[in-house]
Amino acid sequence: MVTTPAAERSISPYGEARSTVQGSPLSTEEARKIHAFWQACNYLAVGMIYLRDNPLLQEPLKPEHIKNRLLGHWGSSPGLSFIYTHCNRLIKKFDLDMIFLAGPGHGAPGVLAPIYLEGTYSEVFSDKSEDTEGLLRFFKQFSFPGGIGSHCTPETPGSIHEGGELGYSVSHAYGTVFDNPDLISVVVVGDGESETGPLATAWHSNKFINPARDGAVLPILHLNGYKINNPTILSRVSHEELEDLFSGYGYKPYFVEGSDPETMHQAMAATLEHCVNEIKAIQQQARSSDVAQRPRFPMIIFRTPKGWTGPQTVDGHKVEGFWRSHQVPLSEMQHNPEHLQQLEAWMRSYKPEELFDQNGKLLAELKDMAPTGTHRMSANPHANGGILRRALKMPNFRDYAIDVPKPGQLEVGNTVPLGKFLRDIMKMNPNNFRVFGPDETTSNKLNAIYEVSKKFWIADYLPEDEDGGELSPDGRVMEMLSEHTLEGWLEGYLLTGRHGFFSTYEAFVHVIDSMFNQHAKWLEICNHLSWREDIASLNLLITSTVWRQDHNGFTHQDPGFLDLVVNKSPSVTRIYLPPDVNSLLSVADHCLRSTNYINVIVSDKQLHFQYMDMDTAIKHCTKGLGIWDWASNDQGTEPDVVMATAGDIPTQEALAATALLRQEFADVKIRFVNVVDLFKLQPDTEHPHGLSDRDFDSLFTTDKPIIFNFHGYPWLIHRLAYRRTNHANLHVRGYKEKGNINTPLELAINNNIDRFSLAMDVIDRVPRLRTTGAHAKEKFKNMQIQCRQYAYEHGIDQPEVINWRWNL
Amino acid sequence: MVTTPAAERSISPYGEARSTVQGSPLSTEEARKIHAFWQACNYLAVGMIYLRDNPLLQEPLKPEHIKNRLLGHWGSSPGLSFIYTHCNRLIKKFDLDMIFLAGPGHGAPGVLAPIYLEGTYSEVFSDKSEDTEGLLRFFKQFSFPGGIGSHCTPETPGSIHEGGELGYSVSHAYGTVFDNPDLISVVVVGDGESETGPLATAWHSNKFINPARDGAVLPILHLNGYKINNPTILSRVSHEELEDLFSGYGYKPYFVEGSDPETMHQAMAATLEHCVNEIKAIQQQARSSDVAQRPRFPMIIFRTPKGWTGPQTVDGHKVEGFWRSHQVPLSEMQHNPEHLQQLEAWMRSYKPEELFDQNGKLLAELKDMAPTGTHRMSANPHANGGILRRALKMPNFRDYAIDVPKPGQLEVGNTVPLGKFLRDIMKMNPNNFRVFGPDETTSNKLNAIYEVSKKFWIADYLPEDEDGGELSPDGRVMEMLSEHTLEGWLEGYLLTGRHGFFSTYEAFVHVIDSMFNQHAKWLEICNHLSWREDIASLNLLITSTVWRQDHNGFTHQDPGFLDLVVNKSPSVTRIYLPPDVNSLLSVADHCLRSTNYINVIVSDKQLHFQYMDMDTAIKHCTKGLGIWDWASNDQGTEPDVVMATAGDIPTQEALAATALLRQEFADVKIRFVNVVDLFKLQPDTEHPHGLSDRDFDSLFTTDKPIIFNFHGYPWLIHRLAYRRTNHANLHVRGYKEKGNINTPLELAINNNIDRFSLAMDVIDRVPRLRTTGAHAKEKFKNMQIQCRQYAYEHGIDQPEVINWRWNL
Repeated sequence: MVTTPAAERSISPYGEARSTVQGSPLSTEEARKIHAFWQACNYLAVGMIYLRDNPLLQEPLKPEHIKNRLLGHWGSSPGLSFIYTHCNRLIKKFDLDMIFLAGPGHGAPGVLAPIYLEGTYSEVFSDKSEDTEGLLRFFKQFSFPGGIGSHCTPETPGSIHEGGELGYSVSHAYGTVFDNPDLISVVVVGDGESETGPLATAWHSNKFINPARDGAVLPILHLNGYKINNPTILSRVSHEELEDLFSGYGYKPYFVEGSDPETMHQAMAATLEHCVNEIKAIQQQARSSDVAQRPRFPMIIFRTPKGWTGPQTVDGHKVEGFWRSHQVPLSEMQHNPEHLQQLEAWMRSYKPEELFDQNGKLLAELKDMAPTGTHRMSANPHANGGILRRALKMPNFRDYAIDVPKPGQLEVGNTVPLGKFLRDIMKMNPNNFRVFGPDETTSNKLNAIYEVSKKFWIADYLPEDEDGGELSPDGRVMEMLSEHTLEGWLEGYLLTGRHGFFSTYEAFVHVIDSMFNQHAKWLEICNHLSWREDIASLNLLITSTVWRQDHNGFTHQDPGFLDLVVNKSPSVTRIYLPPDVNSLLSVADHCLRSTNYINVIVSDKQLHFQYMDMDTAIKHCTKGLGIWDWASNDQGTEPDVVMATAGDIPTQEALAATALLRQEFADVKIRFVNVVDLFKLQPDTEHPHGLSDRDFDSLFTTDKPIIFNFHGYPWLIHRLAYRRTNHANLHVRGYKEKGNINTPLELAINNNIDRFSLAMDVIDRVPRLRTTGAHAKEKFKNMQIQCRQYAYEHGIDQPEVINWRWNL
Repeated sequence: MVTTPAAERSISPYGEARSTVQGSPLSTEEARKIHAFWQACNYLAVGMIYLRDNPLLQEPLKPEHIKNRLLGHWGSSPGLSFIYTHCNRLIKKFDLDMIFLAGPGHGAPGVLAPIYLEGTYSEVFSDKSEDTEGLLRFFKQFSFPGGIGSHCTPETPGSIHEGGELGYSVSHAYGTVFDNPDLISVVVVGDGESETGPLATAWHSNKFINPARDGAVLPILHLNGYKINNPTILSRVSHEELEDLFSGYGYKPYFVEGSDPETMHQAMAATLEHCVNEIKAIQQQARSSDVAQRPRFPMIIFRTPKGWTGPQTVDGHKVEGFWRSHQVPLSEMQHNPEHLQQLEAWMRSYKPEELFDQNGKLLAELKDMAPTGTHRMSANPHANGGILRRALKMPNFRDYAIDVPKPGQLEVGNTVPLGKFLRDIMKMNPNNFRVFGPDETTSNKLNAIYEVSKKFWIADYLPEDEDGGELSPDGRVMEMLSEHTLEGWLEGYLLTGRHGFFSTYEAFVHVIDSMFNQHAKWLEICNHLSWREDIASLNLLITSTVWRQDHNGFTHQDPGFLDLVVNKSPSVTRIYLPPDVNSLLSVADHCLRSTNYINVIVSDKQLHFQYMDMDTAIKHCTKGLGIWDWASNDQGTEPDVVMATAGDIPTQEALAATALLRQEFADVKIRFVNVVDLFKLQPDTEHPHGLSDRDFDSLFTTDKPIIFNFHGYPWLIHRLAYRRTNHANLHVRGYKEKGNINTPLELAINNNIDRFSLAMDVIDRVPRLRTTGAHAKEKFKNMQIQCRQYAYEHGIDQPEVINWRWNL
């Protein structure tokens, strides 16, 4: 089959610059210096990948100057430093507050190079000084054991986006500019990354910017042409399709395409200036008017050859402008003198002797091309957000408490008072706190917040929006049906020193599993970098939980996110399952004050029993777990059984089971333990919240049966507690993928977390009851059958059963 | 702040039809009947949500006719059945082979209704007959305990896409038409769903269709206007932006907008006809020519009011055309006579007496509007793909075996022979087998496959693609940098009766965690539906694994996908960790022949030791785990310690540890157990592959220490094996988030899975060695220090250590 060749003109990355904006703003002298700065960047990028000695090529290159293992990505590095260099010019010219996000983070050499050249690297890492010795260390550490990685890792000054996993650069960038009116975040978007789902929808973030109060994102789509082995989609469609696509996304796209440095420098300078002026004009108009209007922000489509300025061919194969330049274009340097020679010629093509002085320091006239101090993107405090973080002003969470005169009587929606608490936090922190949710803030019953702040909306309005739309261009509740985008925004917001709260459906939090993993890894590395200041924790409320998804069915039932959370470093992960209003408030207060964690709070949005007044709740949450005396009757003695719970519904059912058992067996001694802080179950050697074995044993006994009714998949409890003395007697109930369309009670019965199953479990496991309990067991079994029959007939649960109240 | 009102004309869903394609193809009679069929659909949709009695409204509506719990989604139902009805017309007119995917699966009433009306529902579920009694059962079962869910669940005939979790409709649809040249898959895409990342990038799937050999997808974007509580983004941008966006995605967008039924029927009929003709023209041209050209397929933007034809207002609030119609527009029917009256009026507005006969059967002239037999979308065999599935023709996998004269000598890339095996499967099954990977088929060393089938590419070509591009418009290797899209395509391909293989980076398989969850749930439900024929298993090769991501660093190290897999139903999940080439071939052969599973195979792509010749490998894999006699010296006696492993690198290190120990302690008795089939570790009561306790005890002893070196997070092994007799002596090593830029050995040491750590573990746990082994322990400790120092100095591992070979 014959294929159609590309329309050469529209997709070739080569030749003289072709650009939407015309003009040559650079003087010859400025153009020369900008080019030289970029050459220095490229020289450094190659040096990082290859050299362990002879950093300035002051002698001919020999095999022993080359690293034993060649790692890193050359491909997108020159494009990244080209953009970085031109941003520097703009910062100086317009006195801008700007940060830089590298979507193709594996082009780190292209970012690390200008960071070193503008001096920040040496300030942060004093041994990587601005001299030959420092330069050598800078080269050697790259992609080297004990050194730094080949992405824009947390160790990279000025980076808030690693780019190890692709897809999140644009949402991160938008998160940084919310409530940062003077910040411009330049985000370079890889054309590979652009194929991911999260990136493809994140372009719509431009509909969530209010130019009157938010800063601006300037996306630069880097059409580098290739991924590891493949062309990219966007580099192989027509000019018209690209223009349509980004116009359709709501941007004003500007093209800069070519490979000829001289004309490319002029084109890029002209285009960037134009875009910054356009951004400023949009902002000025919005800020001087009373009309909130969705603007058409500019974005740049920047097409250059992959591996630009690198070897054109190697061993007869095209390299520059092809996927072969993705990683290390020349290899086997120890055994291939030709490659070594080619490398030397490549490096010398940048004329290092015209860039650095004898001591390896960048010439002053070139260093002068970069801004200084915190104007440098690498030293901008927004990119080390902890510097700017102010603690949240918090109302007293006790003021939102509800009265609980007697446990297990009153049913209240647990998230409703939390909504009021969040409302008042929002009121007290109007510029540095946002609430995120995928179209579910109301559904999750946090809607009190709308009294203070609506859902942000700046796209078109209709008259009916007035009737309960809760929309406003002033709002700071962020809703979009993309968990990816919300999580990305929130991360960007936190990493630049602000605070936030994200609530989402339990089953669909798995959509952002991978983003959770990556943020946890970022935080863990930051914990080892003293110069990275503490940022606010990422607070994730998991609601609309499995046990109240009986009606939405099987697809909506998945409590497995916690299994993922426990895999990550104990120094950054926290899990809480507060069973009622007051414990949820106490936990939320704690989480919102904390730093450097990912706090996962599990709490359903429907009506649930209330157990603890505020004082009790605070004590209970502070301990993290404890005996509920009012539900226990083993006072001062060893119990027959420990009934343990974590989660709202499991707690309710376990209490009902306790009541059934105590009615049935006058002498049974049950200890009731509730767990809020899940990591208490792990030994203290494994997690900072872990309970000592002594304390654990005293709560859970060393030899009595434990029936543990758990919110999630039951095996997680075993995984946390398998080292405990009494593990052999630990019997866990939880969700085990037994659901379809059910009533709540039927769903509980299917998974054996219901009161009747638990009561039968106790009978089976307490030797004394095993012999005497046959009759009771049969009764409970019949109750289950009856409940199910009632549900099948009436479509609801039997009122007598679900209207149960604790009355012992 | 003042907001800008929408340009009324462009975004209002009301009024006479406005459409790109003009024309009135329907005769008055045809228009009347099409409208009546649609009215019948709407009547049924409301009936499903509300009624438990009086299904034909043969008496006035009373509270006791209403369900106790009102569940379901009215909002997108009328739009869905409008489209379905018009598709039926086209199928009849053009004799089309068409299936229907409902992106907004929660509009299931709008899909179930026409399926019932065209008779399929009654054929599959005989008690839901086409009469009053059957209709009542059909109503009552909807969103009712023991009944069916409120999405297009597997119980829905004709559905291959549930739409419970949003985002995957478009990728599913494209998967169905690969290699199905005559199939047209109509996919209705919700405007809510359109905000998700996976959906936003899946539009680019049109670049992966070869019109000469693949069928066509006709996407219909349903601009319904609202999500649960919010407007949708795409419904609130300008007409021009919408047109640009979809032109930019490479489609030819056609608009159909309005609410007036008469003109809307004409507009939709004209537009659909036009689109189908356009599709046919594209296909005809491609099939009669030798030039492969990326066509511009049509797509439809269909804007109608949410809750179309439903109550306009309820209690003074706007409902039709607003988010308030998302779920159940009228509630509290038992206590609110006004609502009851409004419901009755609403239902009677469809004039059921003119649609159904006295016995509740749809009038023949209306039923005649639908196609019959397998032409019905609900009875199309593609949507019950097992019917069409042919077993893969398989070469003998033994032919790809490598010679392994002595274990632990030879190093081979495990995935290379697998690539050859896949190549020949591709050759033997040219039309029903595809291989998927995110830009990584070569990187994962499966590139032998290109000898038979290249990577599919039909976007623009450049001359350099000739040099190793491996691209072709004939290819069936599918690469795009979107795990979401690939997984969606593969699911669509399998669900329509074909076979596939997906290889992906271990860390980033988390991107599709949620898709895995949903597919597992789909399969689990299908296992209970006898009429759903078996489909091929989803085969997922996880490669580029954690232990060889020492150089890419922390972001690329995450073996936690397995923790997710074990949460899903044991009847659909399988996990294999073959340690070498021959075992990988044996496992792959087994997986490719299997049905209804998700098979997860973990195997790294780099060089690894070979242990088993093919006969041994087959026996070992069939058993799933077993003692490696050649690596054990406990023959006929109880060992001092069991050294157990799962995974390639952990096996290598455990063998090296065994060798070190046996050199150091002449009399130590070590039993070496390798596990390929991970679920063997679970009791047979928990998983069909589980080992009986007796067999487990005989392998792992009841009281000797077990050192288990595991590929993933160590706790997973405890989770699987916590019920085993000897669990207290089980000591697991695995990845515990200790990585950055390392050498392979250093990464192993950091996580204690290296030979030295394991040897020390044994010394610590075998009482006899604990006293005599102090010297050896110190030696091992020093070896670790030395290895690390070497790595820090040279950037590579010490050759003497890594060149180790098994020589006992």
